[in-house]
Amino acid sequence: MSDSFGRRSLLAGGAAAAGSLAFSGYALAKEGNADTDPPAKPGGAQVAGNERLGTAIIAFDGKHQAGIDSPHQAHLNLVAFNVKDGVSRQGVQNLMRLWTEDSRRLCTGEAPAGSLEPELETNPANLTITCGWGKSFFDKAGITAPEWLGDVRPFERDELDPRWGQTDIVLQICCDDPTTAAHTLRHLARAGSDYTEFVWLQQGFVNANGTLEKGATPRNLFGQVDGTVNPRTEKEYDNQVWIDGGNFADGSAMVVRRIAMNMDTWDEVDRASRETAIGRDLATGAPLSGGSEHDPIDLEARDKYGLRKIAPTSHVARSHHPEQKLLRRAYNYDVPPHDPASTIADSGLVFICFQKDPRKQFEPIQARLDEADQLNTWITHIGSAMYFIPRGTTSGGKGDAYWGQELLRG
Amino acid sequence: MSDSFGRRSLLAGGAAAAGSLAFSGYALAKEGNADTDPPAKPGGAQVAGNERLGTAIIAFDGKHQAGIDSPHQAHLNLVAFNVKDGVSRQGVQNLMRLWTEDSRRLCTGEAPAGSLEPELETNPANLTITCGWGKSFFDKAGITAPEWLGDVRPFERDELDPRWGQTDIVLQICCDDPTTAAHTLRHLARAGSDYTEFVWLQQGFVNANGTLEKGATPRNLFGQVDGTVNPRTEKEYDNQVWIDGGNFADGSAMVVRRIAMNMDTWDEVDRASRETAIGRDLATGAPLSGGSEHDPIDLEARDKYGLRKIAPTSHVARSHHPEQKLLRRAYNYDVPPHDPASTIADSGLVFICFQKDPRKQFEPIQARLDEADQLNTWITHIGSAMYFIPRGTTSGGKGDAYWGQELLRG
Repeated sequence: MSDSFGRRSLLAGGAAAAGSLAFSGYALAKEGNADTDPPAKPGGAQVAGNERLGTAIIAFDGKHQAGIDSPHQAHLNLVAFNVKDGVSRQGVQNLMRLWTEDSRRLCTGEAPAGSLEPELETNPANLTITCGWGKSFFDKAGITAPEWLGDVRPFERDELDPRWGQTDIVLQICCDDPTTAAHTLRHLARAGSDYTEFVWLQQGFVNANGTLEKGATPRNLFGQVDGTVNPRTEKEYDNQVWIDGGNFADGSAMVVRRIAMNMDTWDEVDRASRETAIGRDLATGAPLSGGSEHDPIDLEARDKYGLRKIAPTSHVARSHHPEQKLLRRAYNYDVPPHDPASTIADSGLVFICFQKDPRKQFEPIQARLDEADQLNTWITHIGSAMYFIPRGTTSGGKGDAYWGQELLRG
Repeated sequence: MSDSFGRRSLLAGGAAAAGSLAFSGYALAKEGNADTDPPAKPGGAQVAGNERLGTAIIAFDGKHQAGIDSPHQAHLNLVAFNVKDGVSRQGVQNLMRLWTEDSRRLCTGEAPAGSLEPELETNPANLTITCGWGKSFFDKAGITAPEWLGDVRPFERDELDPRWGQTDIVLQICCDDPTTAAHTLRHLARAGSDYTEFVWLQQGFVNANGTLEKGATPRNLFGQVDGTVNPRTEKEYDNQVWIDGGNFADGSAMVVRRIAMNMDTWDEVDRASRETAIGRDLATGAPLSGGSEHDPIDLEARDKYGLRKIAPTSHVARSHHPEQKLLRRAYNYDVPPHDPASTIADSGLVFICFQKDPRKQFEPIQARLDEADQLNTWITHIGSAMYFIPRGTTSGGKGDAYWGQELLRG
């Protein structure tokens, strides 16, 4: 595991530092793709001997964009833009080129060209910047979109707020340092302002780097472990996450759902009922059918009364499917109430998932959850968007020098 | 320094871990007060051998409340409440008792009595919880307030938004882990809900623990080092921060100012002009009169043309005063625009300072800045509140078992 980690994320200063600092809790067991990666950008893989978190770098270039199979950093700035009216395909190409060049530098701890704040750019702290395109982006650029790309299909229980809706572009900025995350957001929004207008910003967090024991799964604000079932091997990523073949090969599909969690009514529920609703033990994350957190769930297991140990309407039972799997990379949110309110809590999940095809992965899973999931008592989907994630970039040699370069040739 | 740190903040697992993980950047050179502290709460000072950040503990009890001279944690949830109508002094005493007992446990990584989410309470990660009372709290409780306590005096350039105004109570929750910070906020708001109503929440951050080199001063979102001039020795704390003598001894005074920073217009300014406005070198934080970051500023220093090296209207020159000193413990904020807006930036500072008497410290300093400070071009004070911070607590022996116990006897 430390081997594969070492290929994507380099923390100079020795293995001890990498071990103690470099995981924010998510175990990333996936094998690295260094063998097939383009050559690393000079300077991007080596940092002067120093053990601090600030110098930790996740390689920007690669077969796939970083920020998907990367370790789950502590902070999220997920920012959505629309392309301004009248921007040509050439303009969109300029935008992608300048964003990619600046992102490559920011993720490497180098100041972008002409930066006025180089001091805010010296602590990448595992920064990743991942760019996604909505269907409308393809339309505006006059190029052909993946056939699955469009709005996420509506669900019965959706209470979507247009504030968190579909846009042309998304940038997923993830970082273990909140100051770097804030400055990166600021820099990219400003850098793209000739071509884009800001639509929304979703901020989130998981545990700070080093908080949890190595390999432990983080918890959401309901206290549940979140992210137990996720691809870990290269094969699982290939089967579930990366698009293979065709124009969109090595890209992925991102679905973003903003899920409000009602902390007030959740508080009224005892632990046994919470566990029944989820289908897992709260303390250990083990399925109620037995074993430990990462053991397979057994939906047929019965207790001594012949009753199912995992309720068929539990979250685990409804989301489980042998074929429909995807990568969940969710962040908690906890913000002041948007409107004056008597409750303090505006909490929930910026649910982000990656997959080959949302029509065959996220949507059928969510359709089952929408139809019957005991957790629905306390959660509401209030935002929804879908994006295509172009393949990774290269800073030299063949491939895309900037996000979607080949696709934007049309 | 590591010696004094070890007394307040205990990270089990050895000095190496404490050295690499336990500072979020601020050097806390103040001597600990262990000699005069009540005995540490059993279990509060020792954690099973484990080097992770999650287990780092700052002692809750002490002569002074923690969260003032404590190392500057990465995350802030500053939450303000009013006491509900009809709550008696006995009710207020109940509130302070239950909040203190729960806070003591949360800061020690123990679940409060009756907790339904013990798994969210196992990572204190340097959690501190500091309670303050506004003038109206004293009035409602029917007890005598410090004579200096009241609203912060108005300043000419204030553009105060009542959303961030004075309240009866404030809780300053600081933590190196954002999940623990969120859960602590949730727990305390819920625990106090019979007695209090929520008014506002100000969230902020500095660099994540371990991001910066040890002892480095964090930067605000303008890129300036922020916190260079602060008390460091016990004597300086005694002279500037802790109230001595009388009913309010060992307490302190907190002033909270929400300071909006206009990132858009700041972006238009070159580095030389930024440095002139501040009076410091951006890269090093050194005063423009010369030397390095922590050297004294020389307002009389002249360049070869006979001009002052530090402009008399610079931020440094206007804030400098040989007698008026205080502890600044500010956090950056960077949130989505509150109202639909064309700009992405709602950024600034949750400026928090501690002192003996704001009428003689914060207010005269701010009066000079309000009158003339080049930084005023880009910053606006939009929130203001003042609180008395009761002395620290003890979990056994003489002293306050809960916040303000002796004062609330009336």
